[in-house]
Amino acid sequence: MTLSIALLAAASMTAGPVKPAIVTQTVNSPAFKAAETILRNDHDRFVSEIIAITQTPSWPFGESGRASVYAEMMRRSGFADVTIDGIGNVVALRPGKNRKLPAVVVSAHLDTVFPKGTDVTVRREGTRLMAPGIGDDSRGLATLLALSRAMDTAGIRTDRDILFVGNVGEEGPGDLRGVRYLFEHDVRAKGAASFISIDSSGSGGIVTRGVGSNRYHIVFNGPGGHSYDKFGIVNPMVPMAKTVVGLYSIKTPAEPKVTYSASIAGGGTSVNTIPPQVFIDVDMRSTSPTEVERVDRELRAIAAQAVAEENAARSTERGKVSVDFQVIGKRPAGQTNETSGLAAIAAASAQAFGYESRFIAVSTDANVAMSLGIPAITIGSGGKGGAEHSPDEWIDVATDDSVRGLSVDLATIIVAATTTH
Amino acid sequence: MTLSIALLAAASMTAGPVKPAIVTQTVNSPAFKAAETILRNDHDRFVSEIIAITQTPSWPFGESGRASVYAEMMRRSGFADVTIDGIGNVVALRPGKNRKLPAVVVSAHLDTVFPKGTDVTVRREGTRLMAPGIGDDSRGLATLLALSRAMDTAGIRTDRDILFVGNVGEEGPGDLRGVRYLFEHDVRAKGAASFISIDSSGSGGIVTRGVGSNRYHIVFNGPGGHSYDKFGIVNPMVPMAKTVVGLYSIKTPAEPKVTYSASIAGGGTSVNTIPPQVFIDVDMRSTSPTEVERVDRELRAIAAQAVAEENAARSTERGKVSVDFQVIGKRPAGQTNETSGLAAIAAASAQAFGYESRFIAVSTDANVAMSLGIPAITIGSGGKGGAEHSPDEWIDVATDDSVRGLSVDLATIIVAATTTH
Repeated sequence: MTLSIALLAAASMTAGPVKPAIVTQTVNSPAFKAAETILRNDHDRFVSEIIAITQTPSWPFGESGRASVYAEMMRRSGFADVTIDGIGNVVALRPGKNRKLPAVVVSAHLDTVFPKGTDVTVRREGTRLMAPGIGDDSRGLATLLALSRAMDTAGIRTDRDILFVGNVGEEGPGDLRGVRYLFEHDVRAKGAASFISIDSSGSGGIVTRGVGSNRYHIVFNGPGGHSYDKFGIVNPMVPMAKTVVGLYSIKTPAEPKVTYSASIAGGGTSVNTIPPQVFIDVDMRSTSPTEVERVDRELRAIAAQAVAEENAARSTERGKVSVDFQVIGKRPAGQTNETSGLAAIAAASAQAFGYESRFIAVSTDANVAMSLGIPAITIGSGGKGGAEHSPDEWIDVATDDSVRGLSVDLATIIVAATTTH
Repeated sequence: MTLSIALLAAASMTAGPVKPAIVTQTVNSPAFKAAETILRNDHDRFVSEIIAITQTPSWPFGESGRASVYAEMMRRSGFADVTIDGIGNVVALRPGKNRKLPAVVVSAHLDTVFPKGTDVTVRREGTRLMAPGIGDDSRGLATLLALSRAMDTAGIRTDRDILFVGNVGEEGPGDLRGVRYLFEHDVRAKGAASFISIDSSGSGGIVTRGVGSNRYHIVFNGPGGHSYDKFGIVNPMVPMAKTVVGLYSIKTPAEPKVTYSASIAGGGTSVNTIPPQVFIDVDMRSTSPTEVERVDRELRAIAAQAVAEENAARSTERGKVSVDFQVIGKRPAGQTNETSGLAAIAAASAQAFGYESRFIAVSTDANVAMSLGIPAITIGSGGKGGAEHSPDEWIDVATDDSVRGLSVDLATIIVAATTTH
């Protein structure tokens, strides 16, 4: 997941008491009670799988080693049909009673934010495990395995197919390419009834708003030259500066939230040289796709005008200034209904196990499904954890809290894959 | 010297035929003819000294090794009074007939632009010598030695004292600190009649306009924060950008020439972080001190207003933005009369030996003396040369051209140290 627990809390809205009867029925059923016992008995294996996954390094665009290990774990967990797709996602089918119904897709991500070569040795102090990526998202990946085994052993068969996916490319540079690919190329995902991403520790947080973003590396080029000798020629620094000033004059509504940031500046060669190239990195975000696109459109117009003004204001005898928008990332925005359906099921499931539920706006793999109109949420894998994206990342695997968290996810998935709610 | 020959030519104005009678008398005198012969006979030693100086590494703020070697060369060339002053300049007095008259200061600089560790081995192909710093300014340093020996041997004694100086800190980062120190601390320099800097190869180019510059690393600070979560707080990128736009709205006259350049931009941590700090490096130059100071004043006002506007426009709940002007360099501007006196003597001396003379505007050690109202020029050390400030730097020591160039400088110095012109 992209933001820390602290940021998640800040952006959240409390979800009211939503308890679809089907959730209560499900968690009170003998089969579910059996599954809970199985999760508890299986917990040591669950923890050992978290460790094994964590200690198999996986970095942005370097997920293939972990994908192989994870595919083998899925096979050993009982999946008959496990494949690695064209972009590197591990995809395993758990057939439902009615194969003609749209499936539910449940995913966790294979990538971490940590570069190749990071020490991923897991350290343990009591029930606390520490290593880069252990919560984000090794625990999520192991959760898929544990839930599937519990359903098998408890004899739970859902109405719908469930497609379990260990996907690539969730973190920043990956730009959601794993889930993007899945929904473009896998017919089972394309027509899915819903999408559930299991990402990072914790229970009760339900991502229902996918913050979309457009991110650019905007490069301004010019002829460059000696600051004294060539004074009077166009300077790409000027349209770059006007673009920043123009961006910060764009008005934004309070709702839907839309933000922008001129975040990084760079370029130039020496203090006495008119720079041949400068750049800014800009981030635009919103839960509303139309708002992101509006800001994007206005920014491009501002930059184009600034370039035209500079070419008119100063000499172009040695060349003109120009601008080039290079895409760093584009994440689609989207939203899932918070009052019924998938979000309500997840909220009721959390509350059924004593967790306070809350709705969150953030960018996760669920963005992709949301943007396609498929009901989608991202929920935690249970237990406590923190310091994601830092070398001090940790999780707690105290059994009671950990198993309760797994039970929340199991209830959410089973009910989502049931047709009667 | 800071600019290449090509740039010098671009900035030059042709000097008309100026031939003070005293120059003609001097160069036609038997003593001067004798000195010319001595320069020719001494030319091999001159070349070997250029090589020895070049192969003693000297970099910005690392001139002391070369200073020791050069002081010893001065002593071996006949100077009785050689000292190294408080900042590292080598200073040698050549007493005149009238010790009460203001002296003439003649300098060449010890520093090069090349960093510590640069290979300074001299390669020779015929009359062409190649090594970093060999023209800029090893040849100038050796010129002082050769001229002094020629005057001694030919029995030429000037009216005024001549203070020969091998000074530190001429190149960029040195910010003219060697000559600055000399004019602040050495009473003989403080009250000098004129100042002549011998810098790089060539004959006929006479720097009469010292381009002054103020250079700043301008840092804009702010609280910083997450681009989505903290949207609405002040961003130091905005006043930075407004400062650039404001700078480029400052009007400049055609004469005196004044220039500015926003040359380098930087700062920020990641595309989704409102930057806690950004900066721009700015260069302002003019031959007119008042023009540099006007632009400087306007720029500071623009930056201050931009900061105030940003603190008013967006939330300061996490802190305000601020600006800090950090001085990279300050070189005083100045100008020497081009129609009489020192500049006319130098032009007549060049023309007496068949060189076309031209006046040049550039930044050299002469800036300091000019800014103090002391007549000052920078002239070449003779011969051909090029590619200064590049690893391919070269000079040509073909004897005829080389000795003629030395003769130009000898005439200029002797006449400048004579009271009757």
